[in-house]
Amino acid sequence: MYAYTAPFQNPAGSPIRELFKYLSEPGMISFAGGYPASDLFDIEGLRVAQARAYQDSILCLQYGPTDGLPMLKEQIAALMARRGASCSPEQMLITTGSQQGLDLLLRVLVEPGDAVLTEQPAYPATLQALRLQQARIGTVPVDGDGLDVGRLASLLASGVVARPKLLYTVPTFANPTGATLARERRIALLRLAVQYKFLIVEDDPYGDLRFAGEGVPSILALADQVDGSRDWVVHFSSLSKVVAPGLRIGWTVAPVEIARRCIVAKQTVDLCTTPWSQAIAAQYLADGSLERHLPRITTAYGHKSGALCRALRAGLGDAIAFHQPEGGMFVWARMPGVDAAQLLASAIERKVMFVPGKAFFAEQPDAAALRLSFAAPGVDAIQEGARRLQQAYQALA
Amino acid sequence: MYAYTAPFQNPAGSPIRELFKYLSEPGMISFAGGYPASDLFDIEGLRVAQARAYQDSILCLQYGPTDGLPMLKEQIAALMARRGASCSPEQMLITTGSQQGLDLLLRVLVEPGDAVLTEQPAYPATLQALRLQQARIGTVPVDGDGLDVGRLASLLASGVVARPKLLYTVPTFANPTGATLARERRIALLRLAVQYKFLIVEDDPYGDLRFAGEGVPSILALADQVDGSRDWVVHFSSLSKVVAPGLRIGWTVAPVEIARRCIVAKQTVDLCTTPWSQAIAAQYLADGSLERHLPRITTAYGHKSGALCRALRAGLGDAIAFHQPEGGMFVWARMPGVDAAQLLASAIERKVMFVPGKAFFAEQPDAAALRLSFAAPGVDAIQEGARRLQQAYQALA
Repeated sequence: MYAYTAPFQNPAGSPIRELFKYLSEPGMISFAGGYPASDLFDIEGLRVAQARAYQDSILCLQYGPTDGLPMLKEQIAALMARRGASCSPEQMLITTGSQQGLDLLLRVLVEPGDAVLTEQPAYPATLQALRLQQARIGTVPVDGDGLDVGRLASLLASGVVARPKLLYTVPTFANPTGATLARERRIALLRLAVQYKFLIVEDDPYGDLRFAGEGVPSILALADQVDGSRDWVVHFSSLSKVVAPGLRIGWTVAPVEIARRCIVAKQTVDLCTTPWSQAIAAQYLADGSLERHLPRITTAYGHKSGALCRALRAGLGDAIAFHQPEGGMFVWARMPGVDAAQLLASAIERKVMFVPGKAFFAEQPDAAALRLSFAAPGVDAIQEGARRLQQAYQALA
Repeated sequence: MYAYTAPFQNPAGSPIRELFKYLSEPGMISFAGGYPASDLFDIEGLRVAQARAYQDSILCLQYGPTDGLPMLKEQIAALMARRGASCSPEQMLITTGSQQGLDLLLRVLVEPGDAVLTEQPAYPATLQALRLQQARIGTVPVDGDGLDVGRLASLLASGVVARPKLLYTVPTFANPTGATLARERRIALLRLAVQYKFLIVEDDPYGDLRFAGEGVPSILALADQVDGSRDWVVHFSSLSKVVAPGLRIGWTVAPVEIARRCIVAKQTVDLCTTPWSQAIAAQYLADGSLERHLPRITTAYGHKSGALCRALRAGLGDAIAFHQPEGGMFVWARMPGVDAAQLLASAIERKVMFVPGKAFFAEQPDAAALRLSFAAPGVDAIQEGARRLQQAYQALA
């Protein structure tokens, strides 16, 4: 009836969202979600922040500046400084989750047919956003140390990938692989960005969720060490995984000119991110609640990750291979000879879920890969879920 | 340095936002804003709603469904029913202000080069959104009874405007004209939409702000009276002007297929509108606070509108012409022989501001037009502002 010729032709939406219908089944144990654990939310701390924020009720209730409330931008700049990266107010905008940051960036930067690069496997919503912007997507493989930057260098040098506009990566505790890009690779990547003039789009929602190993500075923080590279880094982060997704508070740090264009776009897109939740977030950060509460989350995620990895090894042995993560929310596994989609069907019958790896590939999907999130279920549920997964696997054979 | 070839080339942003810098000048009286009056916010009612919402803290803090929290959708459906329009959950999505509703709609519907129509003068952010989507914008004039639907019929019949995809209108207390589309014109417009197969995009943020005259049902509500027309109406509304913009709660009511595509687009754009503010809005609506509080706003706006109109007539007499509004936030005036941009410069020197009409025209701007908002300033400030405007005018002559 309508002449739908514009983008968003695929009504199916995200392949992960397709799994949502099974979540409500009684007794289902889900390793499929990308949600943080609800039982680790700092409910009391946020109640206090809310009460403080509402002392300036007009600030909460009126329209706010498109680039974000100054009080929140100040707190985010302090948080970024604690993470080792300086940023000025002009380089920053507050967004409705970091998902909006990516959407705005692609809208101001990417035209149909533009070449862009992503790590592979990659976050599906990013692939969707790139496809909807009609970008030509090239991929760079990932190993246990994150993006294969050597391979990227060859691709660029040989001209196989010509003039990419940007490269998207989740360098710390990646979604889906859980891998962290090694420090020397970060430096090499920054050098390539300067040499070949492409933007590194660093998406960093999980970086604070480290429960083992040594910290690695963000690509943005390391840009100080590579001449001219700061002009080629856009950094997204968010309170969704370390405070609460329901605040919908993300931020973009970008070269001033790019930040300015994103802000102009945001005027048309939603005028401003909810000032009320911005004010709550600012109060929460200002009194040190994030630092106080974060260890509770990372400790719990460390236990959950350990429980999942042990149970998978115990139950599936050589049938499954994975790197044990040092942080974040995900275990990325391969089960050689197994079709993960078939395994999922068998698993759902046994009331356990995960995401088949296929969803994370822009091209040449690995049918044997799967993503397991340990964030939401408790340790007992994780152990029971792993047992059910073992049964699902045995039923396939 | 960067190859910026994508949209959002105009770094200036909205012409109204350009005026913001003068707002902070001490003693400035502003008729320029589109902000509702901060001193009329229901601070206590929203405090209560906030406390109730947070009783289900997980709902506030976790990700929510992309189309909106069911409890809020239910309350909005009830509100729409009180306004005379029925809508099913599948026809509705909650958006980050109604601004986002328009952005999503244009992204799923409008391709570069598509013909679209707007009333003229029109809301500048809509013109900006249409331009950024690279639509071809045709205009239909407005008189004291709103959009000139007879003129639209001639334009369509003659083929001067061929196959428009949509027509955008604010039919009730329009921004900027304050005019309300007469009932019989609404019916005629619905018939044209069915005949020529274009979508009527009805933006209705101000409809509940009536302080004089008889109510007219929304175009959406009247669609029941014109066979087949409901398939051709998309309706936006918002709590920004009747509760508080800081909630960032808007909604779209659309044919199911269009709503579904907007929801898929929203997954990529921001995943979901802040669940916390959705829960607060749902509680606020559920206990009848909107109905209880709204008369306070409309009564105050009626006094302010009356004060502005009387003061303009008293001070400027025949030099100014306008229709006295029956609701909303705006007086749209013409001062024959005056260049409103020059008048603004003279006015700013005298510490009073308004928006020159030019910003509201897609083509052939009327240099003598100006928009005055009476929502934010108090009655005393309105009277003093009108005196200063008179002095600014006299200084020009």
